[in-house]
Amino acid sequence: MHNSAFPDAPQPLNGPMTQSSTPTIRLIPKANARALRRGFPWVFANELVTDRRTRALEPGTIARLEDAERRFLGIVAVNPNSRIIGRMLDRDEEAVIDKNWFAARIAHALQLRERLFDAPFYRLIHAESDGLPGVIVDRFGDTCVVQPNAAYADVLMDDLAAALAEVTGVKNILKNAGGRGRTLEGLDDEDKVLLGAAPDAPVPVQMNGATYMADLTGGQKTGLFYDQRPNHAFTARLADGAKVLDVFSHVGGFALAALAGGAVSALSVDGSAPALELAQQGAAAMGAADRFETRQGDAFDVLAALGEENAIFDVVVCDPPAFAPNKPALEAGLRAYERVARLSAPLVEKGGYLVLCSCSHAADLNAFQGACLRGIGRSGRWAQLVHTGFAGPDHPLMPQLAESGYLKALVFRLQ
Amino acid sequence: MHNSAFPDAPQPLNGPMTQSSTPTIRLIPKANARALRRGFPWVFANELVTDRRTRALEPGTIARLEDAERRFLGIVAVNPNSRIIGRMLDRDEEAVIDKNWFAARIAHALQLRERLFDAPFYRLIHAESDGLPGVIVDRFGDTCVVQPNAAYADVLMDDLAAALAEVTGVKNILKNAGGRGRTLEGLDDEDKVLLGAAPDAPVPVQMNGATYMADLTGGQKTGLFYDQRPNHAFTARLADGAKVLDVFSHVGGFALAALAGGAVSALSVDGSAPALELAQQGAAAMGAADRFETRQGDAFDVLAALGEENAIFDVVVCDPPAFAPNKPALEAGLRAYERVARLSAPLVEKGGYLVLCSCSHAADLNAFQGACLRGIGRSGRWAQLVHTGFAGPDHPLMPQLAESGYLKALVFRLQ
Repeated sequence: MHNSAFPDAPQPLNGPMTQSSTPTIRLIPKANARALRRGFPWVFANELVTDRRTRALEPGTIARLEDAERRFLGIVAVNPNSRIIGRMLDRDEEAVIDKNWFAARIAHALQLRERLFDAPFYRLIHAESDGLPGVIVDRFGDTCVVQPNAAYADVLMDDLAAALAEVTGVKNILKNAGGRGRTLEGLDDEDKVLLGAAPDAPVPVQMNGATYMADLTGGQKTGLFYDQRPNHAFTARLADGAKVLDVFSHVGGFALAALAGGAVSALSVDGSAPALELAQQGAAAMGAADRFETRQGDAFDVLAALGEENAIFDVVVCDPPAFAPNKPALEAGLRAYERVARLSAPLVEKGGYLVLCSCSHAADLNAFQGACLRGIGRSGRWAQLVHTGFAGPDHPLMPQLAESGYLKALVFRLQ
Repeated sequence: MHNSAFPDAPQPLNGPMTQSSTPTIRLIPKANARALRRGFPWVFANELVTDRRTRALEPGTIARLEDAERRFLGIVAVNPNSRIIGRMLDRDEEAVIDKNWFAARIAHALQLRERLFDAPFYRLIHAESDGLPGVIVDRFGDTCVVQPNAAYADVLMDDLAAALAEVTGVKNILKNAGGRGRTLEGLDDEDKVLLGAAPDAPVPVQMNGATYMADLTGGQKTGLFYDQRPNHAFTARLADGAKVLDVFSHVGGFALAALAGGAVSALSVDGSAPALELAQQGAAAMGAADRFETRQGDAFDVLAALGEENAIFDVVVCDPPAFAPNKPALEAGLRAYERVARLSAPLVEKGGYLVLCSCSHAADLNAFQGACLRGIGRSGRWAQLVHTGFAGPDHPLMPQLAESGYLKALVFRLQ
């Protein structure tokens, strides 16, 4: 009777497991089996009985995980070289981690993106949150860029790439081995073309009416950050007729969206000349080159210099790299966010807007907001908080894994 | 040189204060003067030297606030009948709280809304966050509905209404005295027409492609909740071709947005027959009456009944009233949110979406999310968190006042 618009994801055609072929690993009694049962997806090395047999497992081995009482917990990928020694793949004891398994996960993820986006430009797989631990896939039309940041994904890359091609129909699949996660997993940094060919020029990407140039082979990360898309969109709504400053601009994320929103001018500041060159190409492709300027340099230096010049903007955006990438870096990171706020607030026109972002998962929303408010207050300004945004919905969150929520964007209006 | 799109808000034409006419109130030494200096806008009765003279002040009196060392802190509105005995109006010692002062605050607030919205339908004044403590103004085209939930706004209502008419040009201004806040302030509950006339029929309001019917004289609150607008919009993106259930629907907030987004059907559940009647009228105005159904009844009962019927929807929304309106109600409130999640999750198709909302400021984002996840987990389902939304930008937040941030909307995708 029920005619659903949401058909089930395709089911893998599981054969019975050959029990003997799958090693079993076991938690020590003190390990947090309860968290794993509730959905936490990682097993740390100090939680596991690491006997000689376990230590001898090849990185990327698929194994059965049991608790200390030998009760089955899940099928995991093992990497004895990583602090995250096990990653939960499936809670079904019969699951076989093969091409069909990857295809089912990818199809489920694709369904969400196709519902949300008109064009095939998005993060297709957001690692644990999409059921593929450690694996990032960004899609740029008929090209996918895969970041396999866990050993099993390297080992099973043929199955993963074949499933990706089959489910999405993309023509080109590139492996980007530049992720920081690969170092922690003891994996190499060798990029590869897995299917088709690498594009020989930056790929134009349309978002929020702007054109971004994504360099899929030479750029940082995978050439473009999709995660800020809704925050770009919100900022663009504030930008009509405005003078806009975009600091830590990368390839022009906020600046080009603001130009699409009607900004009279946008100035992008970044330390990377190649990133600013891509931003210029994007502005040119939009026919907005005459409203766009760039300034290369250290962001803090440029902020200070603009302050000395008494420069004033209607909208100022600061989207720095992760100042607090982990807990030990938290205090210093929060001071850096406070400094960004203190240096940027004086550049904002009375009644104008200050957009402050953090991609540090260690700095939670309250801590980041506090740092921003201290900085704004120390600059002698008062603020309303008009909008709080996170990463877009193609970056879903795994509620059991705090690390999967990292991006915060706060839009203040200053008096 | 700088040609800003953001002109300064008009400045009030302050004359010098007649010092003798303005009483002074003073904090006790233990009061938190530091918080007030940092922006906290309230003085509690137990923080004030409440001598006979202070206790004798008329509710709504404008006074100078000093700390225990007699240093000026701000111009405040006093209400000896309220636990919030003082509300910070202005930190400028020369400020005069008159029509011009109201006009400046309203103009500043209007500037933000005109930048963000194409049509004059929004919350124009969000109390403390917009610099008018205790005052809510919702705008419906050429009609404004004012909720003066603090004594000074009652006393100065002529100035407030005149400023509102002057700055916005609206023809009708209605006073809604039904706010819970007025009881706490010891104020009457008498509605009034302050300018023009009350509309003699529900006012159609366009949001996200849907048509809502706002009853400005008979409805709950001010007839329509603008705060969920961005969360309606996000839900509408998920709704194309979907079967949608909207529980605690009021006048059809999520259901009508989903119909505008292409839902094949929407079912609104609410305890209020008049609210559902307005939802029906909205659906009819959209030409979507054939895709829309309502069911009147207790939401928990209806959720349980739908479960027994094995009803399945692609998108389920639950937007209940504040279950945790204050700290003492927090534990029971969180249990109620958990129950809503547990009863609604089984109604969601595999791969479908569950939108859970809270308007309880006492339940913060983490606590509310935890309650939702416990409920979803107890129903035997797993969830990704696809989107976290708050109230729209016409409901800005005063960072120093946690109470100004209350609304949370979590969009889960269930497996």
